[in-house]
Amino acid sequence: SREKVHITRLQKQMEFIIEIDKLKTIIRQSHIIDGTKKENDAEHSWHIALMALVLSEHSNFKNIDILKVIKMLLIHDLVEIDAGDTYAYDEKGNKDKREREELAAKRIFGLLPKDQGKEYYKLWLEFEELKTKESRFASALDRVQPILLNYHAQGKSWKEHEVSKQMVIKRNEYTKDGSRKIWKYIEKILDDATEKGYLINEKH
Amino acid sequence: SREKVHITRLQKQMEFIIEIDKLKTIIRQSHIIDGTKKENDAEHSWHIALMALVLSEHSNFKNIDILKVIKMLLIHDLVEIDAGDTYAYDEKGNKDKREREELAAKRIFGLLPKDQGKEYYKLWLEFEELKTKESRFASALDRVQPILLNYHAQGKSWKEHEVSKQMVIKRNEYTKDGSRKIWKYIEKILDDATEKGYLINEKH
Ligand SMILES: [Ca+2]
Repeated sequence: SREKVHITRLQKQMEFIIEIDKLKTIIRQSHIIDGTKKENDAEHSWHIALMALVLSEHSNFKNIDILKVIKMLLIHDLVEIDAGDTYAYDEKGNKDKREREELAAKRIFGLLPKDQGKEYYKLWLEFEELKTKESRFASALDRVQPILLNYHAQGKSWKEHEVSKQMVIKRNEYTKDGSRKIWKYIEKILDDATEKGYLINEKH
Repeated sequence: SREKVHITRLQKQMEFIIEIDKLKTIIRQSHIIDGTKKENDAEHSWHIALMALVLSEHSNFKNIDILKVIKMLLIHDLVEIDAGDTYAYDEKGNKDKREREELAAKRIFGLLPKDQGKEYYKLWLEFEELKTKESRFASALDRVQPILLNYHAQGKSWKEHEVSKQMVIKRNEYTKDGSRKIWKYIEKILDDATEKGYLINEKH
């Protein structure tokens, strides 16, 4: 009956909603700004979704679909429930990352009703592939946020991992493809962070 | 010059983005489902924004503006950076809540460029006033999420605060105004929670 099918949809959706609670336990490398703890993926996802709203005018693209950007940002880290957080500057961990995350995406989005699971899986892929304007802008925010946290937390996690300014630039420069304006702002922050000793300068 | 005005906008936006990092330190009364810690407002806001996406088909309203719902949910707890989290069943704390939150909204949204600050302040008010379909659906999710967490964490925080089934119903029944279907689902959960002893039954 219609009612029965309907209940099944809601129950599947609720199972997904319960499962994703685990994102609150996936710890990242960035400290929150007051230095009291490391950030987790749920907090990070909230922060960048709100950043997308506030900063959308600085995207390189006109007529960007901001709802799509926010959808991507809200779901992009769910794969880390199974695959874990791979630190940006961990070369070994980044090698089999894609494979682990692909399996995770299939399992986690697979909890949802088929149509929704498919939609979210596609959104996650689109985010990873960086071919569309929405994914480029979303990814720029995902990269910029930890830089802001690190800078305002006096470079705490950069120092822990002996990160250099040149490493940060190399890994995040493509942020320009999402927003030249925001990248310009970040370049100034990286100069200042290097001057203050939060980041190593390889050229010294 | 145009360039100068523009930089000022971005800097204001960045100040807001840095300030709201504090939401990650505002601790709520609900435990996350694995029982390892209490949830904070940033995690909660992420969770309900994603719930809005997943559950929008169950809203009472046709043609609901889901981007608006998500905006509301992403910003609705920012006032607690200044005003703190007031526990739903704390009658005293709920008396001057509105006044404290009003001041907080003015300060925090006031960090943004004027047009954006005004937009977010209005969205926050709309959420609080529960007059529009978007605010009713958003508020329903805000109420339902802690019930789900409590239920799946074996009633941990309900037991701590000696909450009864009748108290939960009285305080959250208007969730029906946002989604009758979701409230029906919650009613079943509350019955089961009472049977399992997670909630007190005043009628016994
Ligand atoms: Ca609240």
